[in-house]
Amino acid sequence: MLDASRMSELDAFLVELNAVSAEAILPLFRATAGDQALENKGGARGWDPVTAADRGAEAALRKRIAARYPDHGVIGEEYGDDRPDAELVWVIDPIDGTRAFVAGLPVWTTLIGLRHAGRPVLGSIGQPYIGEIFIGHAGGARVIRGDTSAPLRVRPCASLSSATIATTDGAIYLDETEQRAWGELRGSAQNARLGCDAYAYAMVAAGWIDLVVESNLKAWDIDAAIPVVEGAGGLVTTWRGEPVGAHGGQVAIAGDRRCLDEALALLSRAAK
Amino acid sequence: MLDASRMSELDAFLVELNAVSAEAILPLFRATAGDQALENKGGARGWDPVTAADRGAEAALRKRIAARYPDHGVIGEEYGDDRPDAELVWVIDPIDGTRAFVAGLPVWTTLIGLRHAGRPVLGSIGQPYIGEIFIGHAGGARVIRGDTSAPLRVRPCASLSSATIATTDGAIYLDETEQRAWGELRGSAQNARLGCDAYAYAMVAAGWIDLVVESNLKAWDIDAAIPVVEGAGGLVTTWRGEPVGAHGGQVAIAGDRRCLDEALALLSRAAK
Repeated sequence: MLDASRMSELDAFLVELNAVSAEAILPLFRATAGDQALENKGGARGWDPVTAADRGAEAALRKRIAARYPDHGVIGEEYGDDRPDAELVWVIDPIDGTRAFVAGLPVWTTLIGLRHAGRPVLGSIGQPYIGEIFIGHAGGARVIRGDTSAPLRVRPCASLSSATIATTDGAIYLDETEQRAWGELRGSAQNARLGCDAYAYAMVAAGWIDLVVESNLKAWDIDAAIPVVEGAGGLVTTWRGEPVGAHGGQVAIAGDRRCLDEALALLSRAAK
Repeated sequence: MLDASRMSELDAFLVELNAVSAEAILPLFRATAGDQALENKGGARGWDPVTAADRGAEAALRKRIAARYPDHGVIGEEYGDDRPDAELVWVIDPIDGTRAFVAGLPVWTTLIGLRHAGRPVLGSIGQPYIGEIFIGHAGGARVIRGDTSAPLRVRPCASLSSATIATTDGAIYLDETEQRAWGELRGSAQNARLGCDAYAYAMVAAGWIDLVVESNLKAWDIDAAIPVVEGAGGLVTTWRGEPVGAHGGQVAIAGDRRCLDEALALLSRAAK
């Protein structure tokens, strides 16, 4: 466990890292595909875009981390693993939601998490075009907007029938069995939203969305969000209700245990 | 046809109207359901949320219009028709995307259009939390952000295979025949985005999305967007390729005629 003064130092550094990535990304948001150096890294697996903004931001973050904390490890979507077994390891997705990014939609986010002894202990979900950083650790979670900071707190949700739920895109991220489970879930919920990637996790922490389910996540898609959601009083588990391990997979993010349990019962037949 | 000086006056008034609606809506964005006075107006048709923000904004807009232009008509989602046969008629959706609004997601917009002799001639798509107004008429389209204003221009898109397309939510807004057509469309496109309501139309005007298809629209869901998209060089038609009439329905919004024609061929079997 990191002590409070150490966590406070790392929390301040995380805010600084959000400024570093914003500086690399914002000039390329709503720039031309040429300026973005848009490429497909999906190959035979299908279209999976990456841009100079993803690469530039991750490179800038790695540089700043190496300068400040040369003994820390880094795991990132674009440039792989660097000291992944260090005591403190940063886990980075410079742009979560690159498909939204290239469509000009401001629901992409920068995800930066910190693992201590393998466990996510600090993280942020940043949306610099809107000007928001959702940040959390065991001591609590907050949203920073401009010069203001406000605490984040999940809301109660006694039942799926009154829940607002979300997933990014059933048709591309869920297999057929998972799609059927999602279909049942949305049939049971009051409101279902699509298309938001990790921005939806921030809305769980903020108490506006009750449940998000996703599949096929990588570590960098979810690690940063865990301390934000848990710091706001929420829960992050696999579709089996177990802790999310170091490799992502099927994930459920919820504000209230009752709503989560009801959802997991529906998701269980598609749980891997 | 309104002359340029008259259009310039009405354009300035439209910017003022965006400030009026923002003032009514923003204090209730991310407020509690109680403060939002969240209600279901769907009844037996299913959940269809409306809040004090929708009602308050439309009432404030109607009041400002009546004070400034007492002979203008108003058609609005929440309070019905008032002089709908006037020469100049404002068509208002105070919050397009109330489902996103109540989920805390900043992709809802305020739509305000103006019809002259029955035809949409001026319109805006405003997102006050992000601080953007996309506005257009025959003289051109622009986006206002803070103190800056930049021209809007659609981008070329020679073929659906390189297109970024969008629809809000196949599962609730499209019937089964329409869903199959959407499925073929997204199978042919490079990138498909979901969940954005009219914010996606603004992205067509801005040249980041190539095509949006929606169905079951009401006049207030689309009227305001037509001058924005057309003013930026784009096209708005029914799924049959005809002008969108006074009553909405199935609509396609595109930046390039070639991409639109290819899409309409796929959509034709589901066209009503």
